[in-house]
Parts: sequence; structure tokens; C-alpha cells
Amino acid sequence: MSRVTDYKVLVEWGDCDPAGIVFYPCYFRWFDYATDQLFDEAGLTKDDLIARYGVVGRPIAEATSRFLIPSRYRQRFVIRSRVESWQEKRFTVLHQGWRDEQLLFEGRETRVLGARHPEHPDRLRAIPIPADLRALFEGTGQA
Amino acid sequence: MSRVTDYKVLVEWGDCDPAGIVFYPCYFRWFDYATDQLFDEAGLTKDDLIARYGVVGRPIAEATSRFLIPSRYRQRFVIRSRVESWQEKRFTVLHQGWRDEQLLFEGRETRVLGARHPEHPDRLRAIPIPADLRALFEGTGQA
Amino acid sequence: MSRVTDYKVLVEWGDCDPAGIVFYPCYFRWFDYATDQLFDEAGLTKDDLIARYGVVGRPIAEATSRFLIPSRYRQRFVIRSRVESWQEKRFTVLHQGWRDEQLLFEGRETRVLGARHPEHPDRLRAIPIPADLRALFEGTGQA
Amino acid sequence: MSRVTDYKVLVEWGDCDPAGIVFYPCYFRWFDYATDQLFDEAGLTKDDLIARYGVVGRPIAEATSRFLIPSRYRQRFVIRSRVESWQEKRFTVLHQGWRDEQLLFEGRETRVLGARHPEHPDRLRAIPIPADLRALFEGTGQA
Repeated sequence: MSRVTDYKVLVEWGDCDPAGIVFYPCYFRWFDYATDQLFDEAGLTKDDLIARYGVVGRPIAEATSRFLIPSRYRQRFVIRSRVESWQEKRFTVLHQGWRDEQLLFEGRETRVLGARHPEHPDRLRAIPIPADLRALFEGTGQA
Repeated sequence: MSRVTDYKVLVEWGDCDPAGIVFYPCYFRWFDYATDQLFDEAGLTKDDLIARYGVVGRPIAEATSRFLIPSRYRQRFVIRSRVESWQEKRFTVLHQGWRDEQLLFEGRETRVLGARHPEHPDRLRAIPIPADLRALFEGTGQA
Repeated sequence: MSRVTDYKVLVEWGDCDPAGIVFYPCYFRWFDYATDQLFDEAGLTKDDLIARYGVVGRPIAEATSRFLIPSRYRQRFVIRSRVESWQEKRFTVLHQGWRDEQLLFEGRETRVLGARHPEHPDRLRAIPIPADLRALFEGTGQA
Repeated sequence: MSRVTDYKVLVEWGDCDPAGIVFYPCYFRWFDYATDQLFDEAGLTKDDLIARYGVVGRPIAEATSRFLIPSRYRQRFVIRSRVESWQEKRFTVLHQGWRDEQLLFEGRETRVLGARHPEHPDRLRAIPIPADLRALFEGTGQA
């Protein structure tokens, strides 16, 4: 029963390629935004992450998607996103694209929480996931 | 010993995000272009695919990438790409990002060859990979 | 008193550059979408344009924008758009970006209505603006 | 006889829209990169601008383009760029797109040199164009 967000997409002209369907890298752009929205709704804007945890970014470690049904100009769909799993220093967000009752695509992003490296301030270092941060994504009863 | 292509990238301003590193969906854009280049160098432009095989597209079935080292504005790297595996109706392209001797990222695209569906001309249908097409990617001695 | 549309923008991470502000070409992307919305609200989707006028596209002839105040990640603004002028075969859409009472940018797109060229079907030819099309953008009392 | 740069473009799949031609905001992306290249070739990388002039950015004040001939997937063209005019605190870069002997588009970017505002370090302030900076773009005999 983890926190879930719905990110709404209206496919625009520039998202589509000469085949008339969404150019697939756009899906990853939307995954990134859906994760932002998921964190925002958990009360963790990028500013909050810095203030509360010293986390200046959520660098991507791995991203993947299966594409089942293409979408076209002016079609709409929803990306339903939730944290699917937590490791010590990583978490994986599941993103499912839905239109009506159809699953269009299913993606996953694995990210870390990045704090400034104490010796190399221009680099990031993954920190252990704080328990109270994780709690913000669990048990909300929304799913 | 399969055919290999090197797609050269110069990271531009608009490819980078406020953290100063490449916005990760851009990597998938470059994967798509590297696959185009791989096919072009095999003598299979999009026009050739239509003329010789009735293949009007190479729809993406799955895309994935692990990100090891970020890249910044004006850095250069090469995406080295080759077909890693062939299934009956699918093939997987491996994309490795290299700068100097460092592996920056490693991605894979799984695609099908799409011909017009005989009964639904606005839809595509995956065809079995023709043996002579596959041969164009094998045994070139380049890798 | 011409028809006006408000296109809402939430600035996302990938829209911003390493300076932390919107990468300016994104504004033209949004202008394109705002024009789509303006036509849609006038009852002229791309399908309608084909069916009623044989118009298969609205190619851009000229685009311009002045940029007054930059926008940053997660800021919101509205693009207020209307047809500013009609020529025989061209029309100009004015796009103004507003946040609160501040004018952020002001752009213009000049477009033509493109029908298939009778002798070169792969090319477009600008047609005179139909009077009843123009009427759909005038006198709506919205502005 | 000002400094000129040629920025080479190969139109990729994701640059094109369902009409099969370049989605016009992409041209402004390339203008931005062509200006970067023009400055780089003048010996003024973004790092140089900071070190020598305290200039942390070249914010865009105005951008405009006329579009004469569309380009399609896998076509190539060159953007020929030079500073067309200098004002006290502004300069305008002319960008012309050429394929063979054909002028495809003609754009202009007007930019300022932005230094940190002394009282508001998160804001930029346009500085007068230094004479020695301007000299780097003049009299090179290339055009």
C-alpha cells in the first residue's frame, strides 16, 4: 500500500516522430517528471531534500521500459508511479502507462540519493535511504 | 565478430539539466541515432528496409540503460553499438558509452522489424528476421 | 475581441539548462502547442483542417520571441495566445507568457495553411485563408 | 570581414515531426549550439568568459527565424553564423542555414553578456561589451 501518483500526459506534436508515434526517449522524460511529482506529493521537493537530508539530487542508476502500445498525437494517458522496492542505497520507481484499461508501457527507474561528497564537493555520493524518508512513500492507503 | 559503429556525441547545453549533467533521457535519443547509423553502415537505410523487406519501421520493444559516470557540457564520448543477439522476431542492440578508457553507460534496445499489417494498414506487425538482413551485421571482422 | 487560449506550463527539470533556467528553444515548443490548443478550441483539430479545407498542415513561416524574465524549475506560467493579424495567405499568432501580473516573454508565429500541391503531392502550397475559418477566431467576446 | 563558423547538422529521427520535417523549435536549439561554437572558435569558452570577464552567461534577449525550405530525416545542412551587429550591451548573431546553394532558413539571436548582479547574486546583469571581446569576432578575414 504505497504512495501512488498519476502523471497526466497529452501527446504533443513535437513528441512524435515521422512514423506518427511518440519518439520513445520522450517516455523517459515523462518518467523523470512523474518521479518528481511522486516526491512532491510526498512532501519532498528538491528544496526539501536538500534542507532535510543534504540530498542535492536523485541521480539515475538504471532506467528501463517495455513498450506495448504506441501513442499518437493528441492521445492522452496516465503514468501511474510508485516506489516498487527499496534497497540500502537505492530505490526503484515503477511507472505504468495506462489509457482506458490498456497498459501501454511499463518502465522502471532505479535511483540513489546523492549528497555532496565530503572530499570532492563537485561530486555526489549515494547515502543510505533514511527510514523517515522511506516512510513517506509507504502505508498511505492509496494503493 | 559483428558489425560495430561508433556514434560520436558532443554534449551540448540543451542536453544538460540544472545539475550540470546530461538529462538522462537524452541517452536514449542517442541510442536511437546510433542504431540508425549502425543500419546505415550496414547498407540498410530506412528506404532500403522498405524496398527490400517491406519493413516500414523498427519499433522499440524494450530499452534499458545503466548509468555509471555522468557527462557534462562540452564533454565528448563515443557510443559503440552492435547487435548483441537475434531472436526469431527481435534483435537487441548493445550501446556502450566510452570516454578515453572509461565505460560511462551501457544500454540496450530491443526492436522488431515492422511491416504493414495486411488487414490493418495503419498498424505494424513484426516479421521474422530475414537471414540475409542478419548476415549484414555479422562476420564483418570489425569486432 | 478575438478568440484567446491559455496554455498552462509547469517548467520541468529537462526544460532547464545548467544555468537553472528554461533553455530558450523550449518556449517555441510551447508556442507550437499553444497554437494547437487555440485551433482545437476553435473546433479545428488537424483532422478537421483536412476534412473541411484540405489543409494538411500549418507550416511555420516565421517565429520570433523577446525574452524578458527567465523561468526556473517548477515555476508555472500561462501562455496567452490569439491570432493577432490575418494576411491573404498568412496569419500571425501572438503568444504572451504571464506569471502573476508579470509579462515573461512575448512571441509570434507566422504560419500558412498548407494543402497538397496538385502537381507535387509531397509538397505543400499555401492557400488563401478561408473566410469561415478566420471567423472562428474572431468575435468570440473572450478578449 | 567578421569571424564565421559553420555548424554542421545531420537531421535525426527525433528532430522530425509527424509531417516528416524538422520540428521548428529544433532550429533554435541548433542556433544556440552554433553560437557556442562561434564563441569557442574565438577562444571564448564558457570558462574563459567567467575567468576573463566575470561573464557567467549569455542570456538570450530575442530570437527570430524565417523558414524557407523544410528539411527531412537524414538530410544535412550547415548553419553559417557570425555576429551581425554590436550594440552597447547587446550583440546579434546571424544564423543562415545552407544546403548546397540553397538558403533554408535565416535566424537571429540577440544576446547580452551577463555578470552576477552585485546585490542579487542569483540574478544577472548585462555588462557593456568589452572592446577586446568584440575584437575577437572582427577582422579575421574569414568572411
